[in-house]
Order: sequence, then structure tokens, then C-alpha cells
Amino acid sequence: MIQYQSQNVDLILEPRWIIPVVPGNQTLEKSSIIVNEGKIIDILPSDEALLRYRTKDHLLLDEHVLIPGLINLHTHAAMTLMRGIADDIPLMPWLQEHIWPAERELLSERFVYDGTLLACAEMMAGGVTCFNDMYFYPQSAAEACVKIGMRAQLGLVVLEFPTSYATDSDDYLRKGLDVRDSWRGNDLLSFSLAPHAPYTVENRTFEEVIKFSEQLNLGIHIHLHETLEEVAQSKLRYGVSPIARLASLGVLGPNLVAAHCVHLQNEDMDLMKEHGCHIAHCPTSNLKLASGIADISKMVNVNLNIGLGTDGAASNNRLDLFSEMRMAALLAKGVSLNASTLPANQVLAMGTINAAKALGLEDKIGSIEIGKLADLTAVRISTPELMPCFDPLSHLIYVAERRHVSHVWVNGELKFHEGVYANIEPHEVKDISSQWQSKLSPYKI
Amino acid sequence: MIQYQSQNVDLILEPRWIIPVVPGNQTLEKSSIIVNEGKIIDILPSDEALLRYRTKDHLLLDEHVLIPGLINLHTHAAMTLMRGIADDIPLMPWLQEHIWPAERELLSERFVYDGTLLACAEMMAGGVTCFNDMYFYPQSAAEACVKIGMRAQLGLVVLEFPTSYATDSDDYLRKGLDVRDSWRGNDLLSFSLAPHAPYTVENRTFEEVIKFSEQLNLGIHIHLHETLEEVAQSKLRYGVSPIARLASLGVLGPNLVAAHCVHLQNEDMDLMKEHGCHIAHCPTSNLKLASGIADISKMVNVNLNIGLGTDGAASNNRLDLFSEMRMAALLAKGVSLNASTLPANQVLAMGTINAAKALGLEDKIGSIEIGKLADLTAVRISTPELMPCFDPLSHLIYVAERRHVSHVWVNGELKFHEGVYANIEPHEVKDISSQWQSKLSPYKI
Repeated sequence: MIQYQSQNVDLILEPRWIIPVVPGNQTLEKSSIIVNEGKIIDILPSDEALLRYRTKDHLLLDEHVLIPGLINLHTHAAMTLMRGIADDIPLMPWLQEHIWPAERELLSERFVYDGTLLACAEMMAGGVTCFNDMYFYPQSAAEACVKIGMRAQLGLVVLEFPTSYATDSDDYLRKGLDVRDSWRGNDLLSFSLAPHAPYTVENRTFEEVIKFSEQLNLGIHIHLHETLEEVAQSKLRYGVSPIARLASLGVLGPNLVAAHCVHLQNEDMDLMKEHGCHIAHCPTSNLKLASGIADISKMVNVNLNIGLGTDGAASNNRLDLFSEMRMAALLAKGVSLNASTLPANQVLAMGTINAAKALGLEDKIGSIEIGKLADLTAVRISTPELMPCFDPLSHLIYVAERRHVSHVWVNGELKFHEGVYANIEPHEVKDISSQWQSKLSPYKI
Repeated sequence: MIQYQSQNVDLILEPRWIIPVVPGNQTLEKSSIIVNEGKIIDILPSDEALLRYRTKDHLLLDEHVLIPGLINLHTHAAMTLMRGIADDIPLMPWLQEHIWPAERELLSERFVYDGTLLACAEMMAGGVTCFNDMYFYPQSAAEACVKIGMRAQLGLVVLEFPTSYATDSDDYLRKGLDVRDSWRGNDLLSFSLAPHAPYTVENRTFEEVIKFSEQLNLGIHIHLHETLEEVAQSKLRYGVSPIARLASLGVLGPNLVAAHCVHLQNEDMDLMKEHGCHIAHCPTSNLKLASGIADISKMVNVNLNIGLGTDGAASNNRLDLFSEMRMAALLAKGVSLNASTLPANQVLAMGTINAAKALGLEDKIGSIEIGKLADLTAVRISTPELMPCFDPLSHLIYVAERRHVSHVWVNGELKFHEGVYANIEPHEVKDISSQWQSKLSPYKI
């Protein structure tokens, strides 16, 4: 008989099912996850775990499926304050008559801190442990993330036109990079450069972005090929599609996360593939703003790496990765007229490991593997609408809603449990909302 | 000063907002709904209500929006037992290798009672007060509806091929009509004739259906133009589209509810319009089974009456009208490339009054109007993901989920409140699920 020396660890999780995502197409039963110092140090049969490890914190989750924390690959968290301020109207009046006027008047450090905190509260309760952001005042967004204890990659916005935050592209870049410097070493935050879109950023500025990206080893986060108009205007002004223009400028590369990519010709897809770019598919926002439907099954077939994003709450109107996973799977089937397109395991990978790869964080998050950070989400499969359950993976994508999320861990710490946050009080969120409700009401449709 | 004689009533509801649906585009504040003997007898300013009416049951719902109970215009309730048994595979193997073999072995009165009760529990908790069903053993479905206290129109299935329930089309018809006779006078139940689909029912049988429909003043519920194959096969066999064939047989009329209608040519749409037929749009099921995307904005433009259906839980995999409303609104915008298509008020009408019209129940349900039955749903707008709230109607469609439903009344009786059913115990649903889980597992994918 083998004698084990049992090791003392921080946390043992023993769920009904584990879907590790890597390796794919696997559902573990009667297994435990061992967490120590914020990391997953072992995954093994539960009876063996009892012999090898001891802990003060052994959690039996006998109705739950444990998955990697979900990753929202494209959002503007602070815009949560403007959720529902204007709906059912086309993109340009939406921006010009509602969103931009409100931002002109109200954009501030406070706006961004409050809006991001509200967004984090919503996302965390829905099983999201990391998001890829793009908005003004990243210092305030960073403070909100650290407050609630959520992982984020904050895109340092670069634009040509002035806002209350910065005056011109140089000013945006300088301010953004200063924020990055001030948070170096923080284990929740990473940063990227975020030139807003091909139609709001000039060639000279893209060259600056590339320079800093190379010098500082930073990813690039951009809106790309979101609408037919964007593509048409680029062809008019530059003679080529936005993707072809970015390729010739040297912006395309394996550190680029391109949000939307609704309208791609084959040659655009080839360029994205050739340069190893990543796509943040935002199916709900693309429908709601009537941008169109991205042909995801085609992109999957050419092996483009695709994650999922909610976009901002003002154009979704949720920050709900469960909704996006379900929508992505359903839409791909309906458009391709093939029910086998984007099966549940593929779409769960989009919501986790694919997004981690896009952010350059695939050695840290995105799957339940030994050595990775313990960013984990537990989903309870026990209520009438989830029963019977023949396959927890299918239920996760096609039936479960974010309300079924029971526990969320970041870095091995329990940050959300049954409606209660470790780091914020319920009244904080209510107070934020009611304050901004009155300030923003004049801009409503 | 006017003196009111105050009247004693059963129930006064005083919500933060009322969206009556009829008249459209209206949101009432500071108003109350007066319910007596199961009916809405008044809607008036709350201060006036205090003078005119008194009650032992005055409910202040100060964070809630009150809407008409939602109506699921196409489902197969009992199939809830087979939710998730086979996903991500095309329609024909799905039916032939999984659904039909399971039905052949297990279909019974018990199956239908249990499955329908489970479905009712799910739908009611999601604010649905009435559904349009089509399945075998309608006697058992009726018993489940009456048990939980939910309104339904039960489609009496007619098919050519035998099942454990009936041997041939005459047998289906006879058995169905006997069930209808036994429930006459029940205030929750109505019935329709449900020839399954053009490809499973012969001309002679359609003629029988029409005969009984006219004699007994019954509606007709059918699957129609669900797939491209269905249309192609009809053209091969009958020389015309299924809709044209039904028109020539005399099946089309203002009492027809046609589920799906994914693939309609202009001439099909004209026929549907000309005969005053109703459409049960099932956007999620149509995507999931890869049937396609119905061009709803075009149908709306020609003034076809359209309601929303979930289809069965085996092809959705939810019975969730909130999901269908959101999906219908988003999909219509994305397909039409117009963000103004299907605004929130139109899609709420589809989930309520349009469906009531389709069922011939528009004088009883589908809106909050004086004289209608008090089938009502309260939705709480108070949690972080719903705040701020600039427009409760927008939030209802684009943000709210069925979990935000707090109260559901049918005929003025509170049937569901904060997770608790008036007529069933939580363990009943759990027991049903666990029994069928083991029986059905052999048929899973």
C-alpha cells in the first residue's frame, strides 16, 4: 500500500461535474480541484484528493458544474450607466443624439469608476472573471476592478478628437501609458493600446501605437469592420478595406484583438488569419445596432481564434456571457443552415480559453489546468428549468442563465457567492445607480 | 366635493409602472389595477383608487412593472422531459435517432402529465400565463394545467401514423374531441385541432379537420413552412408550396395558427394575409434546428398577426418568453439591417395581445384592459443588472430575464410568488425529473 504524505492547501473544490475546457470535450465526475496560493495545483479523483491533501476549506458542490471563469473579450464597462438610454434607433443617431452628448457633459473619473464598478458587479454575478475593456479614464476603471477584485485588460483609448479626458492622440497615449505604469505589478490588471477604430484614428497615430506596442509588449484592441459603412468609407478614402489598410500599416499581428468583424471578405479573413489576429465576436450588439451577422462558422473553418464580447451595456443591453454563448451558438446554426455548427464545447471555448489566448493570458487563465490561476465559476444545475439534465455541457450553453451562477473565484478567492460580493455592499451599487439615473435622464430617448 | 361610495373588491395592485399593451406605447405611473371575481374591473390613478375601492388585499409593488401574462404561442409542453437529450445535430437525425425512438418507448399518459407539469412550472415562473400546446394525450396535459392553475389551448394532434396514443387520423380526431368534450366549461382550458404538418397529414384528413373545425368552432394549430425541405417536397408531390396546398384545401382562415413560417415566398405571405392567418414565430428553435431565420420585418410590414413561441424544450432548450421576445427583436434588426425594426412595444405585443388574437381569446386575455381576465405578471426592476432604468419597456425586452418575474396571477389568483407555486410543492418537480432522468438517459446523444 502506498502511503501519501498529505499536503495542507487553501481550498478543495469537489463539484458534481468539472468541464476543464482544456482538454476539450471532457466532463470530469468524482474529481476535485486543489487550489493553493491562488493557483490550481492539482485535479484528481476525489477519493485520491482526500488522501493527498487536507484543507480547512473543502467545498462539496454536489449539484454544480465547475467551469473556468468566463472572459468578456470586448466591452466598454462604464457605459453600463447608459444602458437603455436609447434603443431601437440606428447607430448614427444613437451615437450623435444620445450617447455622445451625454458623454460630452458627464464623462469624468467618477462616471468611469461608478460605471465600471456597476459593470463588474453585473459581470461577476454572471460568472465573468475577466474582461477586455476600452474606455476613457482607465485609472478609474482600474480602481473599480481592484475594488471588487476582478481581472481585466484595460484598453488605453486612442482617438484624434478631444474629450474631457484627453486633447489629442498624443495626449491619449501619454495619459494611458502613465496609468499603465502606475499599476505595474498588480496581479489583476493588464493593459493594451486601444486605437478606437480605423475611422477615428489616422495613419500617423497607428504608427505611434505600433511603436509603443512593440517597445512595451502591449496588445492592441480595436473596433474593426463593424458596419458596411465603415468598409465602404475606407475604400473611398484609402482605396482598400480597413483590414487591408491596417495590414499595410503593420497593425495586424498576433497581439491584435479586433472587435465585431461583421463584414469580412475572403481576402480580409485571409489577412486576419495570416497575421494571427484574434476576433471578439459580439453577436448581440451586432444585431441590436443592426450592424449585421458575422459569418462565424466560416471564420471557425479557417481556424481564426474567436472569443465573445458583450460590447457596452448601452448596445446589448446586458453584460452577460451566458447570453452571448447561447446567441453565438444559435445564430451560427441558423445562418449556416447546419445544426452541428458551433456545438456547445466550441462555444464554451470561445467564452474562456479562446479569449484568454486573444489577451495573451492563455498561460494564466481560460481553462481548468494545473498551474493556472484559480479563476473559477460554479453553476448550479438544480432548478426545474434545468431538469432533467442529460449533459451538463449542453445545459450550460442552451439552458443555463447567469442567474444559475452560485460561486465565483478570482485568484482562488471567493469573490461572489449567492448574490453576495466579498468586496462591495449591495447599497453601493444601488447608490451609484440612483445618482446617475437622475443625471442621465435628460439624455434619454 | 364628490363623494364616492367605496366598493369592496378582491385585489388592488399598485405597481411602479403598468404597461397595458392595449393601448400601445403607453406606460402608466401612479396607477392601480382593480381586480374582482377574476377580472380587471378598473384601471385608475392610485389616489382615486383609494377613494373608490377597498380590499383586504392591497399590494404595493413599488419596484415593479406590471404586464399582461405572457402567452407562448407554440410549444410541445411534455417534451420538456427530453430537454438536452440531443443537441448540435440536424433535424432529421435528431428526430429519427433520438426523439422518436424515445417517444415510441416511453410515450404515455404519465409522460405527458409529468412533462406538462414540469413545463408549466417553468413557464409560470417565467411570467407565462397561457400556452398553445400540441402533443399526444391531451387529457393528461389538461390535468397538469388544471393542477398548477395555468391557462392553455391544447391542440388535439392529428397524424396519419400510429403511436401508443392513437392508431390513425380518425382515431386521433375521435380521441381528441372526446377530451375536449370532457373539459367543456373549464375556465382555463380551450382546444384546437392540430394536424401536425402538411407532410404528415393527407388531404382527406385535412378535410375532416375543416369539417370539425367549422362544426365546433375550433381553431387549427399546425407546423408550416418550417424548413426548405418541407417546401421542396410539397412542390415535388403536390406541385405547390404547403401554404398554397392548404389554401386550396380550405385550411387557411382566421382561426389558423401556423408555427414557424420560416421560408415564405411573397405569394405565400399574400395567401396568409388574405385569409387572416396567424403566425407563431419561433426564432430560437428555428436557429437551433438550423431551419433558418424568418423574415419577420417583412411579415410585420404586410400586417400579418405574429405571436411568439418557444417550440418544445427539446429544440430551444428553454420555455422562456423573455428570451423569445429579446431574440425576436434582435434578430429582426440584424436581418433587416435596421435598428428600428421591431421596437420593444411591438415585440411585447407579440408576446401578449397578438398571441391572444391568434388563439381567439383577445376578448379575455393579452392586455391589461377593463373587462379582461386578470392574467398578470409582475417584473421586479431593482437588481444591479437592471439599473439605472430610463424606460421600463426597454428594460423588459432588452435586459430583464424571466428570473426577474416576482408574481404571476391567473384569473386574479396569485399562482406564483418569489419561487413558490400556489398549487405545487417544490419536491413534486424534483421527483418528476429524477424519475424521467433515468428512464430517458438511454436515448441521449
